[in-house]
Formats: sequence, C-alpha cells, structure tokens
Amino acid sequence: YLCRAFHPHQLYVNCCSSTSLSPPPPRRTQSLHGPSPVTTFGPKACMLHNPNTIMHIQDPASQRLTWNKPPKSVLVIKKIRDAGLLQPFKELCTFLTEVKSMIVYVERKVLEDPAIAGDDAFRTTMNKFCTFRDDLDDISNYVDFIICLGGDGTLLYASSLFQESVPPVMAFHLGSLGFLTPFNFDTYQSQLNQVIEGNVSIVLRSRLRVRVQKDSREKRAKVEENGVILTNGDGEGMHKAAQYQVLNEVVVDRGPSSYLSNVDLFLDGHLITTVQGDGVIVSTPTGSTAYAVAAGASMIHPNVPAIMITPICPHSLSFRPIVVPAGVELKVMLSSEARNTAWVSFDGRKRQEICHGDSITITTSCFPVPSICFRDPVTDWFESLAQCLHWNVRKKQHHLTSEEEEF
Amino acid sequence: YLCRAFHPHQLYVNCCSSTSLSPPPPRRTQSLHGPSPVTTFGPKACMLHNPNTIMHIQDPASQRLTWNKPPKSVLVIKKIRDAGLLQPFKELCTFLTEVKSMIVYVERKVLEDPAIAGDDAFRTTMNKFCTFRDDLDDISNYVDFIICLGGDGTLLYASSLFQESVPPVMAFHLGSLGFLTPFNFDTYQSQLNQVIEGNVSIVLRSRLRVRVQKDSREKRAKVEENGVILTNGDGEGMHKAAQYQVLNEVVVDRGPSSYLSNVDLFLDGHLITTVQGDGVIVSTPTGSTAYAVAAGASMIHPNVPAIMITPICPHSLSFRPIVVPAGVELKVMLSSEARNTAWVSFDGRKRQEICHGDSITITTSCFPVPSICFRDPVTDWFESLAQCLHWNVRKKQHHLTSEEEEF
Amino acid sequence: YLCRAFHPHQLYVNCCSSTSLSPPPPRRTQSLHGPSPVTTFGPKACMLHNPNTIMHIQDPASQRLTWNKPPKSVLVIKKIRDAGLLQPFKELCTFLTEVKSMIVYVERKVLEDPAIAGDDAFRTTMNKFCTFRDDLDDISNYVDFIICLGGDGTLLYASSLFQESVPPVMAFHLGSLGFLTPFNFDTYQSQLNQVIEGNVSIVLRSRLRVRVQKDSREKRAKVEENGVILTNGDGEGMHKAAQYQVLNEVVVDRGPSSYLSNVDLFLDGHLITTVQGDGVIVSTPTGSTAYAVAAGASMIHPNVPAIMITPICPHSLSFRPIVVPAGVELKVMLSSEARNTAWVSFDGRKRQEICHGDSITITTSCFPVPSICFRDPVTDWFESLAQCLHWNVRKKQHHLTSEEEEF
Amino acid sequence: YLCRAFHPHQLYVNCCSSTSLSPPPPRRTQSLHGPSPVTTFGPKACMLHNPNTIMHIQDPASQRLTWNKPPKSVLVIKKIRDAGLLQPFKELCTFLTEVKSMIVYVERKVLEDPAIAGDDAFRTTMNKFCTFRDDLDDISNYVDFIICLGGDGTLLYASSLFQESVPPVMAFHLGSLGFLTPFNFDTYQSQLNQVIEGNVSIVLRSRLRVRVQKDSREKRAKVEENGVILTNGDGEGMHKAAQYQVLNEVVVDRGPSSYLSNVDLFLDGHLITTVQGDGVIVSTPTGSTAYAVAAGASMIHPNVPAIMITPICPHSLSFRPIVVPAGVELKVMLSSEARNTAWVSFDGRKRQEICHGDSITITTSCFPVPSICFRDPVTDWFESLAQCLHWNVRKKQHHLTSEEEEF
Repeated sequence: YLCRAFHPHQLYVNCCSSTSLSPPPPRRTQSLHGPSPVTTFGPKACMLHNPNTIMHIQDPASQRLTWNKPPKSVLVIKKIRDAGLLQPFKELCTFLTEVKSMIVYVERKVLEDPAIAGDDAFRTTMNKFCTFRDDLDDISNYVDFIICLGGDGTLLYASSLFQESVPPVMAFHLGSLGFLTPFNFDTYQSQLNQVIEGNVSIVLRSRLRVRVQKDSREKRAKVEENGVILTNGDGEGMHKAAQYQVLNEVVVDRGPSSYLSNVDLFLDGHLITTVQGDGVIVSTPTGSTAYAVAAGASMIHPNVPAIMITPICPHSLSFRPIVVPAGVELKVMLSSEARNTAWVSFDGRKRQEICHGDSITITTSCFPVPSICFRDPVTDWFESLAQCLHWNVRKKQHHLTSEEEEF
Repeated sequence: YLCRAFHPHQLYVNCCSSTSLSPPPPRRTQSLHGPSPVTTFGPKACMLHNPNTIMHIQDPASQRLTWNKPPKSVLVIKKIRDAGLLQPFKELCTFLTEVKSMIVYVERKVLEDPAIAGDDAFRTTMNKFCTFRDDLDDISNYVDFIICLGGDGTLLYASSLFQESVPPVMAFHLGSLGFLTPFNFDTYQSQLNQVIEGNVSIVLRSRLRVRVQKDSREKRAKVEENGVILTNGDGEGMHKAAQYQVLNEVVVDRGPSSYLSNVDLFLDGHLITTVQGDGVIVSTPTGSTAYAVAAGASMIHPNVPAIMITPICPHSLSFRPIVVPAGVELKVMLSSEARNTAWVSFDGRKRQEICHGDSITITTSCFPVPSICFRDPVTDWFESLAQCLHWNVRKKQHHLTSEEEEF
Repeated sequence: YLCRAFHPHQLYVNCCSSTSLSPPPPRRTQSLHGPSPVTTFGPKACMLHNPNTIMHIQDPASQRLTWNKPPKSVLVIKKIRDAGLLQPFKELCTFLTEVKSMIVYVERKVLEDPAIAGDDAFRTTMNKFCTFRDDLDDISNYVDFIICLGGDGTLLYASSLFQESVPPVMAFHLGSLGFLTPFNFDTYQSQLNQVIEGNVSIVLRSRLRVRVQKDSREKRAKVEENGVILTNGDGEGMHKAAQYQVLNEVVVDRGPSSYLSNVDLFLDGHLITTVQGDGVIVSTPTGSTAYAVAAGASMIHPNVPAIMITPICPHSLSFRPIVVPAGVELKVMLSSEARNTAWVSFDGRKRQEICHGDSITITTSCFPVPSICFRDPVTDWFESLAQCLHWNVRKKQHHLTSEEEEF
Repeated sequence: YLCRAFHPHQLYVNCCSSTSLSPPPPRRTQSLHGPSPVTTFGPKACMLHNPNTIMHIQDPASQRLTWNKPPKSVLVIKKIRDAGLLQPFKELCTFLTEVKSMIVYVERKVLEDPAIAGDDAFRTTMNKFCTFRDDLDDISNYVDFIICLGGDGTLLYASSLFQESVPPVMAFHLGSLGFLTPFNFDTYQSQLNQVIEGNVSIVLRSRLRVRVQKDSREKRAKVEENGVILTNGDGEGMHKAAQYQVLNEVVVDRGPSSYLSNVDLFLDGHLITTVQGDGVIVSTPTGSTAYAVAAGASMIHPNVPAIMITPICPHSLSFRPIVVPAGVELKVMLSSEARNTAWVSFDGRKRQEICHGDSITITTSCFPVPSICFRDPVTDWFESLAQCLHWNVRKKQHHLTSEEEEF
C-alpha cells in the first residue's frame, strides 16, 4: 500500500510549489473552482487514490460556447401581457427571420395576442414562424438556441420546456436588469451576431431533478385547487409525468391550510431534521437570489456546486438555512405527525398536493441551463445583486460617533 | 472547429443516459460534488473544450486516509487551563508512548503546568516527549499526525502551526461535541488503532491563504489609541511574516474604535462593494458555523468549494452574506473615505492594524486541513449542527390554529 | 399663554427631583410603563397643556384582579383530540362542580367525545354542566371566569368567544409551558382557590379590533374555503359580522396562489408602504412571539403598548419589521397593481378572501384579555421565552480564540 | 370589597361604549398611545383600583411646544470638519443675531475653525456669540432652544450636554435626511419663526439614564491594552461622573479583545440571560434605528414606551432582540465566567472598561429630548425609514411565477 498520491495540482504549479516562507506573490489561477488541494499530508499520510471517483471538471471561469454547426433555429420566448415588449418582439423576429434567415419558433399563445395577430405589417414575418403548444408539442430537438424577452420568468419557462439538454439561452431584460436576463435590448443585433459566431462566455446554471413518487398503496381521491374532485385513476400517467427539472427551487409549503407544515427532510437516506413552519425551499444557487433570499438565505453565486435548504418562517428560532454539496440526494416527506397535507411547486409551477407516504426526491441534474453571459459569470452576478436586490446600496452615514471628531 | 465536446460524465452513465421521459430511478452517484454536467446543449451547441482548465477532483465523499509508511510521531495538542483534560491527556500520552511506541510531540508550555510537571508518576512518560516552542521551533516536517484534546480552538491552533501541508488531525472533545472535534474520548484506544491502520474517512477542510501587504511607500507614524506615537521600525520583518493560513475566518473590524469600519472589497481585481459597519468576515465553509453564523450567515458544509463573505452589523439593511466560488481572489483595503484604521485577525489570532494603502489578499489555499471523521463528512456535520448550534431543536408546537380541529 | 405645565411626574418624585450631579441612587418606581417625562424643557419651554388628551393609566406592574361578587360560573375550555387531557379535565370539572359548587360551561362538542360521553362515572357531574354551541350561543354575559386546558390555542379560542369584555382567564399547560398557559396543573386546587379569592396578578393582553369592509360596489360571489359557493345576498349580515377581536395577529397572505401578495399598508390614512411578498402580519405584543417571530420579528413584552408589523418573506431585503404606537389605525388593501386576491385570517381562523376595493382596518381594542399570571407579567414572560423558544439557550463555547490563552 | 373599577376610558367614550355586535364604525381616538382598556372583565371581575400607581399621560400625538416667555438664547451646534456647513452656519447665525436679536451660544471649538475665525465679514456677528467649552462650562440653564446643523451626531452631542432637562431641539440636515434631523435648511427662516412663535409639534424622545458603579472593594490595577499598568487613583471623581443620559444606546462589547464578551443581564433584579457574543445593545426606540438595526433589531417608533435589548453577533442562534416595557430597571455585569473585561460606551462616547464587580444600571430617564417635528412624529419617522434605511425600497418584481400568466 505505497502512497501513490494523485497529484492533480500539477496544473496549478504556481500556486502550490512555494516552499519558502515569503514567496513572490504567485499569479493566481483563473479558476473559479479553487485550487486542487495538495493531497499529501505531512511526511507520511496521503489520500487513498480511487480513480473511479475522480471527476474531470472544466473550470467554470473558462466555460465558453461553441457551435458544432451554425445555428439555424431559434426559440423566442416573450412575456405575455406586457405591451412594452410588442415592438421589440416584432423587431427581433423580423431581424432573425429576414436578415439572419433563421427559423423562429414561437409559442402559439404568444401569437394569439390581438396586438400581434392583428398587425398586418407583421404578417409576412409571422407566417414563417414555427408554432408549438406548451404541454403538447416537444420541440426539444429542434431548437438551436433560445432568446428570452421579459423578466426572469421567461427563463424559468424556457427551462421547463427542456427536461433534458437545454439549448443556450440569451435573455434580454427590457426594463430593469434581472438575475437571469443580463442583456440590454438596445444593441441586440451586434450581440446576437456575436452569439451566433460562438465563443461567448456562458454560465452553466445547475438545475435540480425532482421526482415525485405518489404512495401507490393509497388510491385516494384528490381535491384539486379549483375545487373539482378527480379520482386518481390508475396513477400510471401521473407516475410518468412526475419528474421535473427546476432552475430556481422546489417549494414545499402548507398551501391554503392554516396549519404549520410538518415535513421530514432526508439527506442520502438519513433523516436530518423535521421542518415545522410555513414550509421549506430547496434551491439551486441560481434560486438562492429568488424566493430563498426572501426567506432569509445567503446569496450563492451560480458557479458554486451546492444545494441550499431554507426554511420558510420556521417555528424554531435556530433553524438557519444550510448549504450542502451538490452531490447529495434529498428527500422530503410528510412527517408522520403531520395533520395536514403539504403542497409542492417547481419554479412556481405545477403546484400539487403531497399526502402521507408520498415522497419528493431531489438531486442535482446533469442538464444545466447554459445561460449566455453579458460579460462574465462574476461581473453579471454582482451587477444583478446591486440592481435587483439593492445589495448593500446605502446612504453613507455613521451610526456611531466618537467624542471629538464627529457629530 | 468541430465540436469535440469533453464528456466527463461518462463516469456517471447511470445518471445521464436516460432519454425517455420516465426512466427507471437511477442509482445515485456517491458523489458529494454533484454530477458532471452534460456539455452539449441542444442539437448544435456545446462547451468549447479547453484541456488546460480541466480539473481532476477526487470526490469528497470517497476521500480516505492512507499511510505511505507507518506513522511514528504524533503531536498532542491540549487546551490549557482546563483541569478536566489532565487525566485524559496523561492517559493518552502514556498509551501512545508506552503501548504504541510513538514519539510524542508536546508544546513546552503544556508541560509547564504544575499539575503535569509535578506529577511524579507521569515523569517517565514525559521524559520521552519531544517538546517545542510555538513561534520558535518548526515541527512541520516531524509530525505524522496530530491529536487534539479540547475545544475547536485546539484545531485552529494546530492549523496555525502548519503553514503548508498539514498532517492528519484526530480531534477529541471531552465535554460536548464541537464542530471540529468529532471524537469521543471514551473509546480512544480502538479509534486510534483504526487511524494508525489507515483507510479512515477524512474531510479536507479548505483553508484561506491570506497575505497582508503593508503599504511600503508610507513610513508613517502610527497613532495608538492612547495617543502615544510610535514609529513603525523598518517593517522588514513584518513583510516576511505577513502570510497566514486560516481555517475558520479572516476578520476585518473596527477594533477599539467607535467609528464604523469602512473597507473596500475587491473580487478578482474589481471593487464589488464597500463594507460600512462593524466589519466583515471572510470565512471558509468550516468557518461558516463559527463567527459568521453569529453574524447572520447561512451554514455551509465543509465539502462545498466556496468562500463566504459576511458583514458584521452592516449599516445597510440589504447587505446579506454572499457565497462565492472557492477560486476567486478577494482583496480588502481601507476605503479612501475611512477616517479610522481597521484591524485584522486570523482565526482570532495575530490581530494587527490595517492602515491606508495596506491590503489583505485572500484566496483558497491548496493546503487543507485533513480532518479525520468520526463517521463521515455528512453525518458528522449534522451531528455538530444539532449539538453545537441547537439547529432546529425545538418544542413541537403549533403557532397557527384553525377553526375546528386545534385549540 | 403662560406655561402651566402639567406635572404628572409628581408621583415619581424620587425619580425626577434630583438636581445634583451625583444623587443618591433613587429607589426605582415600580412602574412598568416608565417614568412620566418632565415636561418643562430648559428655562422657558414646556409642553402645551391639553387636558382632553390626558390618559389615566394604572401601571401594568400593579394590575391585580378583584371580584365585585364571588364568581359562580366558569367556562372550561379543553383542547380536543388530546387523550392526555381527559383525566385532568374530568378531575377539574368534578372539583369545580362538586367541591366549589360552581356552574360549569362546556362547549357541546367537547362532551361529544366518546371518552367523555361514554364515561358513566362522570355522568353525574356532566349532567350539571351548561353546554353551548360555538357560533350559535352567546355566553358572554354568563361566564365569571375561564379555565383553559391545553395549548396556547385554547386561549385564542377563548378570546374568539368574547367580542367585547373578556372574563379573567386562567390557563393550564399540561405538557410543556406555553406563552399563554403559565399554570401547571399539579397544584390546580390551591391555585384555583387563590384566583377565586381574588387579588392575583393579571396581565392585560391587548387585542386588535379588525373590521373587514367589503367593497359594496361589487356584488360578487364568494367561494368559501370548503368549496361551497355562497351568494353574498345584500351583504347586510356580512357587514355586521365583519368585526373581529384578535389576540395574536391578523395575517394577510397570498393564500393558495403562487403569486406574491401585493398589498398597500396605510397608517392613519397615509400610505406607508406596499408589501410585496408572501404576506404581512399585524400582531399584538402577545402575538410577537407567535407567527411574527417565525417571520423574523423581535419579541415584545405584552405590557408594551404597541402594534407590530412584520412582512412574510418580503421581496425587498430591507423590509424589516416595525413597531408602532398602539394608538394608530392601520388599513390594509390590495394594491391596485395586485394581480391576485389576498387572504386574511384572524388568530388563524375565519380565513377569507380579500378582493380589490375591500379593506381591513386594524386598531387596538379596548377589550383586552385579562390573563391571570402564574407569578407576574415579567417573570412569566421570560420563563416562556426560555421554554417555548429556547431563547438564548446555548452551549457555552467560544467562537473566537486569542493567541495564547485559549485553544 | 365592592368593585369600584377605575374607568379612565370615559375619555374614549366613542371607542368603548358600543354594546351591540355591529356598532357604527367609531371615530378613532387621536391617541398614539392606544385606547385605555376597559377594566371590567365579564359580569363580576374588575381590576383592583390602586390610585397610587395611576399615571397621567398626555397623548404623544398631541404633544406641542409652548413658551413660558419668548426665547432669547439659542445654542447652535454644527458638525465640524464639514465644509458644506460653513455657509449655512454663518447665514443662520447672522439671522439669529442680527434679525432675531438672539443670544447665540457656540462651542469654542467650532469658532476655532480657520474658515470661521479667519472670515472678517463674519467677525461682527461672531463677536456677539457666547462661547463655551465642552466638559468645562455648564450652559444648561442658559439655553432656551437648540439648533443643530449636520448629521444625527449633532443631536447626540446636544443630548450629552444636558444631563437633566433638555431645551427643545430643531435639527437641520444639510445633505440627506437623518432620523434625528428632519428639517431642510432651504426655508429655515420661516420655520424658525414658527418655532419661536410656539405651538409646533414635538416628539419626546426618551433617554436612558445609565449609572456605572465601579466595584469599590477592589482598588485594582488596570492593565491597559498596551501592557502599561496604571493605578486607578482614588476613584472618587469617577464615582461622581458615572451617570449618563443616552439618547440612542448603551453598548457593552468585547472592546479590543478577541474573546467573546460574557455579560449577565438582570431585569428588576433577576438574571434573565447571559449574553455571549460580541456584546449587547440597550437602546431607546430612537436608538432602534441606529446601531441596533444593524445588529438585527426591529425598528420601534419613538413614541412607543419601551427599551430594546439587542445582542451583537450572539453565540446562540436563538438569541433574538427583545422589547421590554420602559419602566423596568436593567443591570449589566460581567459574568463570573468572563475571562476578559468588557467595554461600555454611551451614544458612542465615554468608552470605558468594565471589570468584575462593576455594574451598569439602566432605566428610562425622566428627561427626554424634546425634538421639534418637521411635520408630526409619525410622518417624520416613515420619511426617515425610507430615506435613511431604504426601508422596503425595492424593484417591483415577482419571485414566483405561475403556470400560465406570468413568465
């Protein structure tokens, strides 16, 4: 059992070769992930080498987009009911169709807006569109990239359309910057040209893969939110549909009930705590700046491989949010003591009831959303923190004063 | 420029090969790091392959200790001024020396305690010890592993003794469990035998490498709090000593001043914010459960590769803690508007003043502390959360009641 | 307009008459409310005297219960579906009926429990009870005092039965101490005798008077929570019933909707902010330790005359809870921008939908709940903080260490 | 012992006389304090009447300033080292001296500023000033009212000059609005005329009276931070000076030490908790928006009679801030387990060390600061919340989305 320590750090030779006490300041690695640790520990110990568990990861800081073949089809997603988006939408689609000769996919519902359907000048362009219906048509193999116009919700919607590999997404905000919509529409043409050429910076936003397993022993009737009573059939279809890819978060809450929710949280098969309160949020780093931050979480950069668990109004004062490694498997079930059901939703969608025996299993997905950066993953994120959350925006003032100098 | 996407995910074939909508639930990877993302995006896009930035990482979940040669020397660190530790200390050292024939290193100060120095029965054992003096003797090449007896502080002290590679650490709590001291002393002999045999689970606790650069252009006079003026020598020696490895956190605060501290925070060379308040904590995930959690941070598992930035009593209500990737370089400097100096400390030690022009540069170190697990990194952490922080320990009670069922 | 300053502080002569720089430490007033302020300001200014707005308040610290005539009737409230309460309930009722010759009022539903209805030994006692039906019978003029058995919910229920003057309440916890249930059942007989004799300490727990005003222009159908559809008739009856006395809090939230709630908050007729988030809690000091504390509020002693406003998961990071004087009038309405309705509940009860144009008006009620103290208002409260919320219960440990002394 | 309940609520007859279930919505009282509670409880109980503890309080909402004799002398406080204040200061003083014929008091230090002392045009005015020296001259009987120019610190300074009755304060902000400086300088003349005429709205900002009692049994040597040993004189003078009036807060913290502070907190003589952390803040409602809010407190309107206790970075996750009635007596002492001293400061001033046996006793003072309102206590406060703390200032956005309507 000689120690043949695995030395991945040879790539970071500048960082780790220093042996004197005061080395010249080393040029830092361009890594976002951090330096590989030296794996010899003192004179005789080292890490047991296990080649089967070695991961080969391209550093997030250098992740860039390229094209296998030139992109030809583009899905355009537009926030509906927002009059301010009509003109940009038409302009963009005309540019894509007429100038760039691309095939534009648009959801049928978008075109049903009278302000679009009734616009004769736009009809020629529109006739070239491919349309599809959400929940009915699967376009996942036809779209080379995606353009979003509107708020962060457009990206959540885009994510929901692609349960496996997601085409690159370029997201424009029209009003104020969003966390997921870094591009300004003003110079859309030059920016689009750059994307089509390739070699632009991307951030791989991890998603969570969520499976909802209904307790098959129980053929219970389900009362839907709208009051209609449905019998749960044989449950076959439901089993098939019960997998979701979420970009922001899975929320389990008390729904319309006045009771506290009472759910057990398992990590890799072990019960780690029972959540008693309004609910619990399991979010990606991307989602840490959405609902989780409102519930008190710290904000996590999207390139940190982690999952965040945030209680919503917990009954216990000491129930702080926690951040666990991206590789764990989480499971949420109703606690045996729970007197009410709970409700689960996925990026705010597909809200459904969770009964005793049902389980929600959550792992990091291997299908991230490749989100095209305006500048780079770090700059874009801090821009969003300041503009979306007013992070540390403050009036310069002093709350303490000392005796002589200030008053 | 054909797309020869790098496919690291072949190791996770169970996870990612599913192409149907309802795959059989895949056996989950044992990874803590999370699955490697699929790097083809839709029909035509993929990640630009850059072999120079690929990292090869052994998954944290499978990190185990092995020995190149059998360990022969052990450093025993004991919290001083704690009478309850005397008996365990003597027992342990006698076992190591007499039974295991190991060379025991002890800090000279520990043996100066009259309760040890004056114990005749212990003298024979003690005479076999190697002693050293903190800050004077460098034992980093002589110690095969470390045993800590006492609180979390013993591990911080151990960390401070090893500025580069750290031998494996086995830490016993005598009273209640600590975050860094998972072992119970009751069965120390069998546990020690297991460690000496090797193949025990370890968690690599990342450290921060901190460099303090004094502004050399300025041979300025320093005004101490009490008004005495000191000249700052030639500063030479100070330059050499100004690198630290910290296990918990670097704290920059206002020191004895009543003024708010006012420091600029740079990330990879860009100013990201100015911290106005009592100070700022830059911590490892290990440190997230120490001072940072008292200042309001979320708690991060030590296997998440990240750095946490937590303001201390910030002047701005919206200044939440943030979590950034482990690979960034942070820099803290006094803001040009700062009217007072700031003070910096490293794991609570080496407290020193920071003046205009000085800079504190912080990156993730490539020399982690290999901390031997009692069970495994995940189980140990949740045990500590519950016992050290009473995480979500609560009385089961209901704050909401509904009309009929509960009152 | 000579200054005839009103000098209420003459009662606190010890406190305010000191004119030398180093007075003998004055015996403190027994006041909880605080000393009346001196109302002359410097040599020439004083407060304009307005006898119409002077309030005469008996200091909370000295508030004690007395009886006009000996109490003869007692309402016993028991938490249902808790088997552990059956025996104490029977024992208590037998004591009250047979030993103290009191008339015992019990809600009919309580007696329908088979474990009570079917107990032959208890039948004689039970036959002497007066029963009533919640929502149908008004017992507010017949009950001399109230005994609660169970959790805090029993007191919320008791409060809901009395829309105006509330008889004194003596509340027993059977398991662990509650905020509202200070008495231990073990020595119930002697404690009850003391209460019947009078001269026991009470805390007047302020309530909020809430009026829900439906927008009369809109004769819409309302869907009740249980799915039954009611037509809103002429609204007459509804207008009459739409007043509530709440002991803990009024909650306005998004109900089953996935949208953020969006409500305007007015104070004395002025819009002070718009709440965007999961909702908002308007609570009494008593309610500050219930739902509000879970949403992040500070905890307020029940003798502080104040109203607390706490957002639930607010979209804005800077939306901290605020505490306003008890005398203000608050009003909550759907914001004009709100795309969904909101839901309101009162101490967790009577949950109902709030539509555009509806308003919820909240003021401090003049009918508090006189809650009998186990010891006194201050001691009881700190006992509850420790036992119910584990307030500052901690492991003694040190997160910071200094260079030499501690590790 | 007939029940002759004290009926203070007769003044609020509109509020409390309603006996039917659906009264006409009563005109609300103009009270900020809240309605006096009805003190009969059910048919037979009432509050024991104790005339000795009745307080007569003029409602805060109607507190207005009047003058016994026309004001003739005014203290002008100017923040030093702020060039932007020079011109307004000169303009104001000239107006007061030349136009209003008032006697202007100015601290000598202010006039030593070369920009003032060297201004020949200002000399005539300046020669009419009365000057005084902080800590040497007592001007408390000579000043009819106070004008502050600058930040909130000017008011803290003004407060510190008056250990008993404080003349009315009119505070101008020059740049942005402060919590304590509501007046805009633009129309200072008309506003000043109104104040001099009297009948303007004031808010009585409560202060805390703090006594520091050094342990007299111990004539101990004090070890200063730098290791110099000082003998503590006879301590006589120290006893005399050890009383303070604070407007914002008393802070007890760990000072320059790296150790946690460890202090016991007593309320009315009973130990309520031990604070382990960076320290503890005892603040007035006015101070709740200063240091306390940075440490996580809720914000309390200055007319709520209360004292706030806020831990600074507490070691325990469950140590929330609490709000107690204004009438309690708090005492802070070093815990017997404390291994270091603590430091105390008063509105950021007079910082001093606290050793074993020393005690800090805190009660609400009967000498508030009468702060002249720009509009009224409520409007001014909400203006400050928005402008100073960006309270709930936010981008309108939605963190949740539902299936169809929004994305």
